[in-house]
Amino acid sequence: MQVADVRIERDSLGEVPVPVNALYGAQTARAVANFPISGLRPHPDLIVATAQVKLAAARVNYRNGRLTAEQARAIEQAAQEILDGQWHEHFVVDPYQAGAGTSHNMNANEVIANRANEILGGRRGEYRPVHPNDHVNLGQSSNDVIPTASRLALLRATPRLVEALRLLGEALCRKAQEFGNLTKTGRTHLQDAVPIRLGDEFSGYASAMRRAAERVAEARRALTELNLGATALGTGINAFPGYRAQVAAELSAITGFELRPAHNTFEITQSHADFAHLSGAIRNAALEVIRIANDIRLLGSGPRAGLGEIVLPPVQPGSSIMPGKVNPSIAEMVNMVAFQVVGYDHAVSLGVQAGQLDLNVMTPLIVYNLLWANDILANALTVFRTRCIEGIQANERRLSELAHGSIALATILTPQIGYLRAAEIAKKAWETGKTVREVVVEEGILSEAEAAEILDPVRMALPQDPDANRC
Amino acid sequence: MQVADVRIERDSLGEVPVPVNALYGAQTARAVANFPISGLRPHPDLIVATAQVKLAAARVNYRNGRLTAEQARAIEQAAQEILDGQWHEHFVVDPYQAGAGTSHNMNANEVIANRANEILGGRRGEYRPVHPNDHVNLGQSSNDVIPTASRLALLRATPRLVEALRLLGEALCRKAQEFGNLTKTGRTHLQDAVPIRLGDEFSGYASAMRRAAERVAEARRALTELNLGATALGTGINAFPGYRAQVAAELSAITGFELRPAHNTFEITQSHADFAHLSGAIRNAALEVIRIANDIRLLGSGPRAGLGEIVLPPVQPGSSIMPGKVNPSIAEMVNMVAFQVVGYDHAVSLGVQAGQLDLNVMTPLIVYNLLWANDILANALTVFRTRCIEGIQANERRLSELAHGSIALATILTPQIGYLRAAEIAKKAWETGKTVREVVVEEGILSEAEAAEILDPVRMALPQDPDANRC
Amino acid sequence: MQVADVRIERDSLGEVPVPVNALYGAQTARAVANFPISGLRPHPDLIVATAQVKLAAARVNYRNGRLTAEQARAIEQAAQEILDGQWHEHFVVDPYQAGAGTSHNMNANEVIANRANEILGGRRGEYRPVHPNDHVNLGQSSNDVIPTASRLALLRATPRLVEALRLLGEALCRKAQEFGNLTKTGRTHLQDAVPIRLGDEFSGYASAMRRAAERVAEARRALTELNLGATALGTGINAFPGYRAQVAAELSAITGFELRPAHNTFEITQSHADFAHLSGAIRNAALEVIRIANDIRLLGSGPRAGLGEIVLPPVQPGSSIMPGKVNPSIAEMVNMVAFQVVGYDHAVSLGVQAGQLDLNVMTPLIVYNLLWANDILANALTVFRTRCIEGIQANERRLSELAHGSIALATILTPQIGYLRAAEIAKKAWETGKTVREVVVEEGILSEAEAAEILDPVRMALPQDPDANRC
Amino acid sequence: MQVADVRIERDSLGEVPVPVNALYGAQTARAVANFPISGLRPHPDLIVATAQVKLAAARVNYRNGRLTAEQARAIEQAAQEILDGQWHEHFVVDPYQAGAGTSHNMNANEVIANRANEILGGRRGEYRPVHPNDHVNLGQSSNDVIPTASRLALLRATPRLVEALRLLGEALCRKAQEFGNLTKTGRTHLQDAVPIRLGDEFSGYASAMRRAAERVAEARRALTELNLGATALGTGINAFPGYRAQVAAELSAITGFELRPAHNTFEITQSHADFAHLSGAIRNAALEVIRIANDIRLLGSGPRAGLGEIVLPPVQPGSSIMPGKVNPSIAEMVNMVAFQVVGYDHAVSLGVQAGQLDLNVMTPLIVYNLLWANDILANALTVFRTRCIEGIQANERRLSELAHGSIALATILTPQIGYLRAAEIAKKAWETGKTVREVVVEEGILSEAEAAEILDPVRMALPQDPDANRC
Repeated sequence: MQVADVRIERDSLGEVPVPVNALYGAQTARAVANFPISGLRPHPDLIVATAQVKLAAARVNYRNGRLTAEQARAIEQAAQEILDGQWHEHFVVDPYQAGAGTSHNMNANEVIANRANEILGGRRGEYRPVHPNDHVNLGQSSNDVIPTASRLALLRATPRLVEALRLLGEALCRKAQEFGNLTKTGRTHLQDAVPIRLGDEFSGYASAMRRAAERVAEARRALTELNLGATALGTGINAFPGYRAQVAAELSAITGFELRPAHNTFEITQSHADFAHLSGAIRNAALEVIRIANDIRLLGSGPRAGLGEIVLPPVQPGSSIMPGKVNPSIAEMVNMVAFQVVGYDHAVSLGVQAGQLDLNVMTPLIVYNLLWANDILANALTVFRTRCIEGIQANERRLSELAHGSIALATILTPQIGYLRAAEIAKKAWETGKTVREVVVEEGILSEAEAAEILDPVRMALPQDPDANRC
Repeated sequence: MQVADVRIERDSLGEVPVPVNALYGAQTARAVANFPISGLRPHPDLIVATAQVKLAAARVNYRNGRLTAEQARAIEQAAQEILDGQWHEHFVVDPYQAGAGTSHNMNANEVIANRANEILGGRRGEYRPVHPNDHVNLGQSSNDVIPTASRLALLRATPRLVEALRLLGEALCRKAQEFGNLTKTGRTHLQDAVPIRLGDEFSGYASAMRRAAERVAEARRALTELNLGATALGTGINAFPGYRAQVAAELSAITGFELRPAHNTFEITQSHADFAHLSGAIRNAALEVIRIANDIRLLGSGPRAGLGEIVLPPVQPGSSIMPGKVNPSIAEMVNMVAFQVVGYDHAVSLGVQAGQLDLNVMTPLIVYNLLWANDILANALTVFRTRCIEGIQANERRLSELAHGSIALATILTPQIGYLRAAEIAKKAWETGKTVREVVVEEGILSEAEAAEILDPVRMALPQDPDANRC
Repeated sequence: MQVADVRIERDSLGEVPVPVNALYGAQTARAVANFPISGLRPHPDLIVATAQVKLAAARVNYRNGRLTAEQARAIEQAAQEILDGQWHEHFVVDPYQAGAGTSHNMNANEVIANRANEILGGRRGEYRPVHPNDHVNLGQSSNDVIPTASRLALLRATPRLVEALRLLGEALCRKAQEFGNLTKTGRTHLQDAVPIRLGDEFSGYASAMRRAAERVAEARRALTELNLGATALGTGINAFPGYRAQVAAELSAITGFELRPAHNTFEITQSHADFAHLSGAIRNAALEVIRIANDIRLLGSGPRAGLGEIVLPPVQPGSSIMPGKVNPSIAEMVNMVAFQVVGYDHAVSLGVQAGQLDLNVMTPLIVYNLLWANDILANALTVFRTRCIEGIQANERRLSELAHGSIALATILTPQIGYLRAAEIAKKAWETGKTVREVVVEEGILSEAEAAEILDPVRMALPQDPDANRC
Repeated sequence: MQVADVRIERDSLGEVPVPVNALYGAQTARAVANFPISGLRPHPDLIVATAQVKLAAARVNYRNGRLTAEQARAIEQAAQEILDGQWHEHFVVDPYQAGAGTSHNMNANEVIANRANEILGGRRGEYRPVHPNDHVNLGQSSNDVIPTASRLALLRATPRLVEALRLLGEALCRKAQEFGNLTKTGRTHLQDAVPIRLGDEFSGYASAMRRAAERVAEARRALTELNLGATALGTGINAFPGYRAQVAAELSAITGFELRPAHNTFEITQSHADFAHLSGAIRNAALEVIRIANDIRLLGSGPRAGLGEIVLPPVQPGSSIMPGKVNPSIAEMVNMVAFQVVGYDHAVSLGVQAGQLDLNVMTPLIVYNLLWANDILANALTVFRTRCIEGIQANERRLSELAHGSIALATILTPQIGYLRAAEIAKKAWETGKTVREVVVEEGILSEAEAAEILDPVRMALPQDPDANRC
């Protein structure tokens, strides 16, 4: 940097050059120098959530006589501008940073302080009348600000994933209805089994996605419990009696979430179990997604030498050198994203177990992994729904052929002609390449009409209980 | 085996020697030969749960005219004897076995059939009038029996873990009360911080264990949804309309659990998400346990060159060569068990994502890992509570010394004398080895009386809100 | 226990009842009471390895004048009896035990001391003239004995896995040769692709298993570096200069392994990186095994509605209700075992990262997981080889049909007739159900003879480089 | 986009608008639309490596008469410009994309084709005389290009990590020398143990980092085996005999790495075991890093109420409110990065096990995770070395105090006065707060001089073997 491009700030460790136009200050500049790790910036939801915390604290502090009206007004306006998305580019600290997120907290304090002073007619770098620590961070500590902002960020972000899961479930449910009358061969152990309807298979996928959505939504709710007001380690030192209830109420008003003070403030300063709970729910959603994407790829395999029961919509050429052949690119991408999400959960789990004594300092890692897991999974599922699932077509000819040709149909004969005789029929069908129905008629076991009725896969596929396939 | 020691049974693959006194038969004997993997036997809860399924099915089948009274009575008695623990040694198939647990299911079918025939005056190996497949397994498939038995086994087993977590939470809560007035130095980032009370730290642990118990209990509840009646793949082929409701009701009566048919039978035949949900909850409990056991070891480190704030009860000599020195053997064991449990969850997650098409065949792996995770964690936590936590004593002298000597007390001076001056005080205390209180008096900043009042760690440690430390 | 069944021993914590016939003593009895976790006993390889350490130490101590001839002779004989398998039932401590394996070490010390005194005409429980600590454990500490015994146990155990991988690779290689001339359709993205030979696919599996064997063998070699002689924390206090070299040489002679003292004794007392290295190699072998077992199941899927290109040998009925249908039970078991092994690696990784300061106390967990991973994977692969892979038969008709019918053959036409025209041919084949060859002849693009030559999948499947398929 | 901003390209699925200045084309534009997942762009090393593959292929194809001189020259120049970093911003496809990385491969093909045509006087979007598929991708497939480019990218990237580990090891070794004479109390089980030298502890860390570097370097070497020339699935269809050797040689010349064709081309098209091998090595390095960073934080805990044996260099204020108190921010960041790396390895492991039949399509996920793991760990270790390790200072007074005050010194008395008497001494020291030395003199057991000699921690800490602490 040229001399002209920087201003010099001072802190207890000495002078720090800060880019002249930066809203942040010395501590942030130090963090940028200390943490050149990933080159990534904070997630927008985390920036907004941090500003919400600062806004709420300022209001409560003012109301309790700890900030002047001028200070409070300026901090509020600065925070509001961040909520409006104006200053995101001034949040510059790598996600891999000081434990407990001190650097991100100071980044927010400095941006708001500088902007507040600017609003009041001052200049960046002067920190009067609004000081980052003394006023913006008043009655707070990184140890309560960062966990709280992380919870708020995830409360903002997770509805995207819940909605993506829910909409995917609905799309699958529509396919379940569309495919409701298509009988096919079931497969267990990857082996041909008794008939089933394609729609019933899809109803299972639909219900699984709905359930995954509910579980992520349930896990999300635990995040409404806040340790804001814990300050350094739970006692609330430097805050005041009643502060944690007031600030939770204020934050509820600002965010629209129903927030409340922690049942035990020490617990959720020590413990990030609520993040593990959410991470587990997202991980488990990903496990289901892996399974379903694998199935979609398997059902769409072929066109001739695979199962070939469904046809996926083409999304890129190469898939179209041969009609009927479609590389399942979207489903493959979904698999990769879901694998990534499982890996993110592993990182979260390591962060969660690493709390020590009065604080778990691994919050920056945890919230980073959760926000990314949430976002890439939500994005992938949206693409999965719109560019794959909704365009799936059944290959009705293939479904019917395999269903009627299945040797597993012989199992229906067991009650009538005994296991051994049925096995002989099946064996003959297999050796001759004929259908079971052809063999039983040839062998004089059943008449054509009887065979048609008894060996009808369509009838065999009907669920005994009609409500067994609810989405 | 000598010829005299075996009987010869026959199945469709040929002759199979079976130990002459075995209640199991050919299929089990084949499985023993096919799966010499771990040498382990099935978990008792899984044996009992499988017998419960067989008992319920027999009753419902009889009630619907599909078994004779004689068959039903004999099957019921045989199953009941298993519930009473009489024949566990005849359940001999390795947990690592045929996919979907076919081998374990056949083991149960054979034991019950042989025992039922014996009850009716027959001999082992004859399979008349009760046949393993045609009667004991009537209207069932491994594909619904094994997931159902796995759910029941876990419904039986998990209360042990929930209770162990809950009791540990209560023991920690009693310690929280016992240590409620003991002020100590807080530590964040492992660095000395403002004062806290030992009891408040323990209240955080207590609340965390209570929460973990609740989450395992909540995850357990999902297991009450059964796919019994799905038979091969969800349609209920070979069962009859209404069967799944009747058998769920019968099983509820037998087990005392409130069981119900699956919302979507296809879903929970394809999907083991409910097992992932439980596994995640247990994994997350283990993460908290790791953290707390680590803290206990850290707080008890020393006796002289560590933190030394608590004294763990000695459980073996070697720890007693020096008074005050206690190897934290129990807590170390707890750490190892919790690590193991996290590894088990990983195996479960791989099993869950591996469902293919109409069935997830990885149930034997999944239930094995869950039952072991449950049991070793429950056992470890019980030992942790009774042989470690309940005997912890506070080292009051040490706590007080560190609290009063802490340089972090200087932070309380900031509002009055400013940050820079407070830092100088702190620096002087550090360099001279004196307390902050001694320095401020020496420097004439405060009088003895003022210093005693202002720099009192006991007062500083009091939570702003008295309910912030609920267990 | 009845009074008559126990003897009373004393240690610094008081009296301990010990079963009267036990070769172990008070410390072991305490450990049994302290660690009722899994009910499992130590792995035989670990028992033997521990006795080898004691034997080597006794010889070196005697040679250096620290044990009498009588003590040394009795200890040696007692240790040798353990090596011969005589006293395994006296090793009774749960794998989840005191950190650093103190309990297991004391179990060995007590068994050897009691047995040595017995040999010298004394009685169990007297500990004269051979004392567990003063003589059997002389110049040792759990902190070097247990890591060393763990390394030796794994040096004993891992050749079983290496051999199982190697033999599986050889079996796959024989299949590669057997299937060398069988052309089939390739599949990428699970979609039909250009032809390949079944043997070439199997050559890939064979080479992968050989490589996995080499990597486990390579990782095993790191275990020959020992910290024996470190005693408590690396300095060798209570041992003597030259001890670590002498005892490594003695252990080499006893075990037949080429052992050497650690490059840095402090490092491998602090660090279990060598165990992580081995665990990673085993984990990675398991990942390959998962893939290959999945492929085998997929290639054998059907018989009609799957790929159906290979037929697996039947291992149990049920698979034989329909000829051609075989539940891939062995491959499924292999999948489950491999998933388990990945989970064990996770537990090992947590143990490895948990070293603190001068010692990693998680050795009992680590060696338990590694030995089990090794054994169940070796066992599973042996069954996989002998009961699945070696009996696989190719379904030549199916392979040929799919290869000749593949629409992907049209890709060979692109250089000659252009991409667009080739795509039209493919499309027509797909829509009419004809082969590409039929269509090009019908359309007058190629003569019968030309078509037969150009569209010959057998020729297309030949590798450009004949050595590209080495096992 | 405005109409004026785009050009329209056509492919077999229809028209595609492409930004008018884009060097990429229709397929890339489709991929951008299909994969809006993470917003991330490809890693620079992957871009360069892909261009290296294209360059090598063009040269070999030209030499074998399959490209004209003009085509070859233009492709070479375009590729060279990418190597020079000119066109990185035209590589725009999300890492989460089509399986096998088809989209990234097409992105490279299109950029090079457009640029080549431009060089030859043509315009973007015309694809003459150089066509992305027919010429840039000639004799290639995504199935060999992407695995090869991924290997090359990692061969480029991993030396950064190896070097960072090696340099960290060297820095730790210098500290080992610097701290070689500083005696301190050892700690095992976190309990005070016999003395050790601070330098010896650091020598263990140094050796561990050196070993980790060697293992990553060893795992890296496996990446020199290439499947380039496999084309679609290993046979080399559309390439020619000898191609794979020629192109490996050409790539060796271009990259400076000693590359060779795969031992078995089918294997490394199916299998990503080499990536798992590398990932495992990086994971294991991270496990060691976690341990060491934890130790550094623990040794630096305090200043008064922790171990306080070392002082970390301050990197940001707040750490400097109290002299001696330094938040271990750098070490905490290192912990978080290492946790992340373990999570990345988990994602890699899932990708590796997911290969199916003739291809593992998960390469984009795998290489993305490995490159990030490599980079963030290398960056974090560099910061760890330069901003933490190199500035660590020993707190000599504290080290000495704890070493001389340690009750564990009593263990040295056992041979002389017996275990029981030594334990009494220790107990008295503990109860009275005196040193062991003071007590033995008071009790008349040793003279002052004897006590000073025998109970000298400095002497007790000397390693028996002077070479036991090699870095």
